[in-house]
Amino acid sequence: SQNLGAGCSGPGMNAGPKSVLLKELEVPRLGHSDVHVKMLAAPINPADINMIQGTYAILAPLPAVAGNEGVGRVLEVGPGVTALRRGDWVIPADAGLGTWRTQAVFPEASLLQVPSDIPLLCAATLSVNPCTAYRMLSDFESLAPGDSVIQNAANSGVGQAVIQIAKATGVRTINVVRDRPDLPKLVERLKALGADHVITEDVLRKPEMKEIFKSIPKPRLALNCVGGKSTTEMLRHLQPKGTMVTYGGMAKQPVTVPVSAFIFRDVRLRGFWMTQWKKDHAHDKESLTSMMDALCQLVRRGQLGAPACTTVPLEDFREALVASMQPFTSSKQVLLL
Amino acid sequence: SQNLGAGCSGPGMNAGPKSVLLKELEVPRLGHSDVHVKMLAAPINPADINMIQGTYAILAPLPAVAGNEGVGRVLEVGPGVTALRRGDWVIPADAGLGTWRTQAVFPEASLLQVPSDIPLLCAATLSVNPCTAYRMLSDFESLAPGDSVIQNAANSGVGQAVIQIAKATGVRTINVVRDRPDLPKLVERLKALGADHVITEDVLRKPEMKEIFKSIPKPRLALNCVGGKSTTEMLRHLQPKGTMVTYGGMAKQPVTVPVSAFIFRDVRLRGFWMTQWKKDHAHDKESLTSMMDALCQLVRRGQLGAPACTTVPLEDFREALVASMQPFTSSKQVLLL
Repeated sequence: SQNLGAGCSGPGMNAGPKSVLLKELEVPRLGHSDVHVKMLAAPINPADINMIQGTYAILAPLPAVAGNEGVGRVLEVGPGVTALRRGDWVIPADAGLGTWRTQAVFPEASLLQVPSDIPLLCAATLSVNPCTAYRMLSDFESLAPGDSVIQNAANSGVGQAVIQIAKATGVRTINVVRDRPDLPKLVERLKALGADHVITEDVLRKPEMKEIFKSIPKPRLALNCVGGKSTTEMLRHLQPKGTMVTYGGMAKQPVTVPVSAFIFRDVRLRGFWMTQWKKDHAHDKESLTSMMDALCQLVRRGQLGAPACTTVPLEDFREALVASMQPFTSSKQVLLL
Repeated sequence: SQNLGAGCSGPGMNAGPKSVLLKELEVPRLGHSDVHVKMLAAPINPADINMIQGTYAILAPLPAVAGNEGVGRVLEVGPGVTALRRGDWVIPADAGLGTWRTQAVFPEASLLQVPSDIPLLCAATLSVNPCTAYRMLSDFESLAPGDSVIQNAANSGVGQAVIQIAKATGVRTINVVRDRPDLPKLVERLKALGADHVITEDVLRKPEMKEIFKSIPKPRLALNCVGGKSTTEMLRHLQPKGTMVTYGGMAKQPVTVPVSAFIFRDVRLRGFWMTQWKKDHAHDKESLTSMMDALCQLVRRGQLGAPACTTVPLEDFREALVASMQPFTSSKQVLLL
């Protein structure tokens, strides 16, 4: 069968999405510890775009197939493969796998099994955003039911996962979004996911915030994917000794913090990058599996769904790339392979 | 004997140093758990000025005697006082004591004993700056001999204590100072204290930094008392997963951090305030005493001296206040009481 892959052939990635080409690829021979995978679906994430633009912290040597997330079905395994068999669903264990292709041969160690009884779009979008949300809610502050979290970019893939995971554990969320034409619809959608409060950035400096804090405590955790002024505003609402975790910078502006917040409110600023976490836990398979188990459990219980997705055949990848880069996009582009 | 105190009578402190008056004060009766103290010496610190200006995070109810640090000798103790006796040297256990006076009656709990065999100016300047330096070097990163620390405002009271304490424990220091007319003299003085490298702010973005890191490792800890652009520059040299602790903001500008430093270098930003530490450890006398013991031990061994001081009789407090607020002041004003 034909094997197609979308990626960059080089020499520079700076040309951005226009430099992505669809090509016929050879499927290499199956090695001793290799797994032949039929890819099923793979999303287009902001980090994929940044890698293509050459602005990401890790870049693949060219030529490279793009795409860091997705799900595939095992077609065949090498004789040394122990934990996977034909028919299993697999997702990337790490960034850089190159998921935008119809078939591939991967080393077993580069794959993680996921149950095949969860929805395809959930499996395809599980390894980056829900994992990021899960870790940020777990690793920085020990949150108890009744505690609250504030986050910006609440409509992003991570943001939607944060809302759902927090809701499932009894943690309240204050969700900051940019003002937009269809705001009421977005508010409704995030509340349907379990958001307690959805506000626009300008509300962060208004008395309405006081109303919110009459019914829920000030957040001990703030999750920042924006930067610039609105992040500084969000930080003002953090509890003393609370932590703000930065995992993205959509506004392309730095994080600016008044000195007094450090000294007199003892706020703690950290960063999070799922790729680094996976690197740091490469020899701690246990924490990776227990996280995946917990997330799949939430999926099965209907407490964690896939983000709003638009599915697109691989052949139409170029339109999907353009659509993924539109401002205020509320739907993730997912390539069907 | 006459009892004089310098402080503010109100109603507002915003008038700044001009609002400080020298007044004859009554010495109250010695209560059951009180200690009558003859104050000996008290420095003028930036936090004292900020309190007088009404811009500090804690302000005394007016009228109030100013001064948060100093040393006194016990003249008499109340019948319920257990740990202090006549002749002992004492320093404030906490901020807000009002040390700019000749005599006072304080509750025993508000005082800490220090050995009377250390130099007067060391004792008078021990409870804020050396404690701040000690805690910042201990509480955020576990530094081993050979590790390095970078700090700005290296010429401040805290900065000089950092240099000496780090030197005594085998930790190397990179010390950032503002350029000034008598720079070579300052460099020489800080090196005499044990500084490994003394550089001006503009060097932070020059290739000379690479030379420094040929002989010592990148710092795991950065201590920030400035804010603004030079703090961002300093942060660039921190090791991945290193911590920057902000304890002051001399530039009156916020701390600005590129999003990538959080995500891809996992830098951690914290704050420190000695007053808060003391509050948090109010029921943990042990950690306070062990810190004071360690500091006095360094003093006795000649490894920790008082900062450069200019001693001034209490009557001349107004000139001392003005002198303490000059830019590039390299000498701490200490009132002799």
